Amino acid sequence: MERTLIGELGSHVGETVSISGWVDVRRDQGKMVFFDFRDRSGKVQGVVLPASLAIETSKDIRNEYAVQVSGVVNKRPDKNVQADRQNGDIELEILQIEVLADAAPLPFDMSLNGFNLDMTTQLDHRALVLRHPRLQAIFKVQNVIIDSFREYLKSQDFFEFQAPSITPSVAEGGAEVFEVDYFDKKAYLSQSPQLYKQIVMSAFERVFSVNKIFRAEPSATTRHLTEVVSLDAEFAFIESWEDVRDMSEATVRHILKELETRCANEIALLEATLPVMIEKTPTLSLTEVQERIFANGGRDSRGDYDLNPEDERAICEIIKKETGSDFVYVYGFPTRKKPFYVYPSSEHPEFNEGMDLLCRGLEWLSGGRRINKYSQLMDHVEKWGMDPEKISMFLEAFKYGVPPEGGFALGAERMTMQILGLKNVREASMFPRDMNRIDTLLSTDHADDTPEN
Amino acid sequence: MERTLIGELGSHVGETVSISGWVDVRRDQGKMVFFDFRDRSGKVQGVVLPASLAIETSKDIRNEYAVQVSGVVNKRPDKNVQADRQNGDIELEILQIEVLADAAPLPFDMSLNGFNLDMTTQLDHRALVLRHPRLQAIFKVQNVIIDSFREYLKSQDFFEFQAPSITPSVAEGGAEVFEVDYFDKKAYLSQSPQLYKQIVMSAFERVFSVNKIFRAEPSATTRHLTEVVSLDAEFAFIESWEDVRDMSEATVRHILKELETRCANEIALLEATLPVMIEKTPTLSLTEVQERIFANGGRDSRGDYDLNPEDERAICEIIKKETGSDFVYVYGFPTRKKPFYVYPSSEHPEFNEGMDLLCRGLEWLSGGRRINKYSQLMDHVEKWGMDPEKISMFLEAFKYGVPPEGGFALGAERMTMQILGLKNVREASMFPRDMNRIDTLLSTDHADDTPEN
Repeated sequence: MERTLIGELGSHVGETVSISGWVDVRRDQGKMVFFDFRDRSGKVQGVVLPASLAIETSKDIRNEYAVQVSGVVNKRPDKNVQADRQNGDIELEILQIEVLADAAPLPFDMSLNGFNLDMTTQLDHRALVLRHPRLQAIFKVQNVIIDSFREYLKSQDFFEFQAPSITPSVAEGGAEVFEVDYFDKKAYLSQSPQLYKQIVMSAFERVFSVNKIFRAEPSATTRHLTEVVSLDAEFAFIESWEDVRDMSEATVRHILKELETRCANEIALLEATLPVMIEKTPTLSLTEVQERIFANGGRDSRGDYDLNPEDERAICEIIKKETGSDFVYVYGFPTRKKPFYVYPSSEHPEFNEGMDLLCRGLEWLSGGRRINKYSQLMDHVEKWGMDPEKISMFLEAFKYGVPPEGGFALGAERMTMQILGLKNVREASMFPRDMNRIDTLLSTDHADDTPEN
Repeated sequence: MERTLIGELGSHVGETVSISGWVDVRRDQGKMVFFDFRDRSGKVQGVVLPASLAIETSKDIRNEYAVQVSGVVNKRPDKNVQADRQNGDIELEILQIEVLADAAPLPFDMSLNGFNLDMTTQLDHRALVLRHPRLQAIFKVQNVIIDSFREYLKSQDFFEFQAPSITPSVAEGGAEVFEVDYFDKKAYLSQSPQLYKQIVMSAFERVFSVNKIFRAEPSATTRHLTEVVSLDAEFAFIESWEDVRDMSEATVRHILKELETRCANEIALLEATLPVMIEKTPTLSLTEVQERIFANGGRDSRGDYDLNPEDERAICEIIKKETGSDFVYVYGFPTRKKPFYVYPSSEHPEFNEGMDLLCRGLEWLSGGRRINKYSQLMDHVEKWGMDPEKISMFLEAFKYGVPPEGGFALGAERMTMQILGLKNVREASMFPRDMNRIDTLLSTDHADDTPEN
């Protein structure tokens, strides 16, 4: 008999069907045995009646057995209907169960409500724990974040490219980079596709990439991973950095809208609330932010080169109270505190046209306008003390006519964590890598959960 | 004035518009200057008439300048219409040109027909050469390959996940792996997401990933790259390896169909011909293939453990002649010659249920059914002499009920190369990495184009 997906059983009432899936729960009530079965499309309850041929088999089956089950789809009597559950109005009367693969007894409770594992246990049993509805929900949300990022930019004519992971040198300095033994030479893992996306933009005009970046920060807090998914965009023919802000805002708005429609169940299960993006996200310069915080009785950070975590929380609270927006853009950081390619304001060249998008007290996205004129770029390369040889491919692009341009980047894991209110970024990575663990602990003298510093 | 995309000019005849783009070609005819302008949507011809305010500016402009141009969209007189070209029936009468960024003189001819660069020069000037229509066409084709892979599997309910790049150990042996300095320990770059996709399949039932894999083969031929994009799929509840063959065939068929409709111009420009996939791709066992080659006057490879390149070409020619198919599946390789997770045939356990898809003499795809029963898997782990500790996360998945399953993988660069008939796989990678070059040459005592070995 052809397989019917569990999610489609509702349209097969009265029919005999065959389903394939896992035993989610088994409840032995002596004469009868109840099951919840699970496949990629959802769950359904099944019952083995005393006279069923399956009664013997059903006694031996445990949770997580993979099974093929034939049965009759029955309407439940009204009093047994569970309206808030998928397939809550039907039940599968089981005729036969074939065990496709057995399962060892579970090492811990995998039920939705019984699940309360610390991070270390979750990571020690990642393969099994990925079956839990909570983790399934997290990664479905992450999938929709990445998917809708891609979807929106494609709708805006952006071309997707594959940014490289292995790079020849550390273009933007920084010790926090992984070194690779590359035959008899040295190479490095990419910390950012920044220079590559600008190169590809110069040829394709509007580009984006979804790719891994690597950070060798020797830090094992709840906010650090060594390997993350970076969502990057870059586009030419902008009028000003505000075009970049608008494009990034529209992208995030689309992602939130898609999450709302495609992940309502997952977000409810995780008890999360999507952040509110109002019609026009408030946009303040760094100086304005500092003045607003001070005027609201906060810390006096006027004159500082950047916002610290306390400032980020403070300005988000102020904006939320005043406008209802969970988001705020901050622009106008000091030019010399940012990378060489960031565009200095024409009016106030000591400030630049880079920007950050904060949400609920944390940075989600950064971006801005870049320098597009070759002479100005070379001037910055010199002032920033960079070796032009190491970025010669990047510089070549700008020798041959690059119009005003800009772009932005988001981190998929961080965004997942912050949307879902997760406490540890490891929860937002299917196979999290940190300084002490790559799937398994690298040595036994490290704990996983060093408190955040 | 708002920007109009060049591709949309046809619906603005008689109007004054503003376009932004690059100077593709400039032809100075003394009193008049002709331009071809290019943006992400296409090309259009513009003309500066003697009385135009733009006549002076237009004298200074060279190819690849980024410009903003206002002008009137005119219908061309019938005799000047070029029906086979985009915008061949219109011309932009230029009123004004604003230079957004100038361009240095080009180091070589970038016109479609004048372009004839050796691979080394192409790679030395990658940033500029990416603007050439030939390279644009290659990467648009590659983009559609990846996009339609993703699209088809999503339509079949597959869940996309992010496979890790950094791995803790070399699970499947092999010296051809890159080592990473991971804090004070060693880690490795992933050679394949195989074990991860099987883990994620055990939780999500149907999964795919588009991710980088890394191969440290010390080989600088026209077929080797150290970093490539792997298109991977894995799914549960199969009946036999033939379900995997069917799913992989449907995926490739969808990719070819999308290329045909979305990349007709690019494929024509590259003078390529899409391979023919007939209704049911011929499927032969290794033994049958060897017998067919021998019977057709080819090499006697009967009893060999695998096909060599000559055999692959021979069987493809035989099948093409007999059926018209450019594709052929080969299954039934010797069990002990394949990785530990490949499923041995129940009837003839010395042969396994892995398979390769050949096209035009080369392997495109491999896959097959995997072992799903824990005890059988542990038996293979032992026979293959593997350390179960090193794959403990993988093995855990199979402790808890994994139904019959299988999957397949394709390489994006190889597929691009073979569809387009490119001679060097470097042409199919935007930023190709090989043992001698990562963007720039790693040392000067290596040539790029070692002949294929």
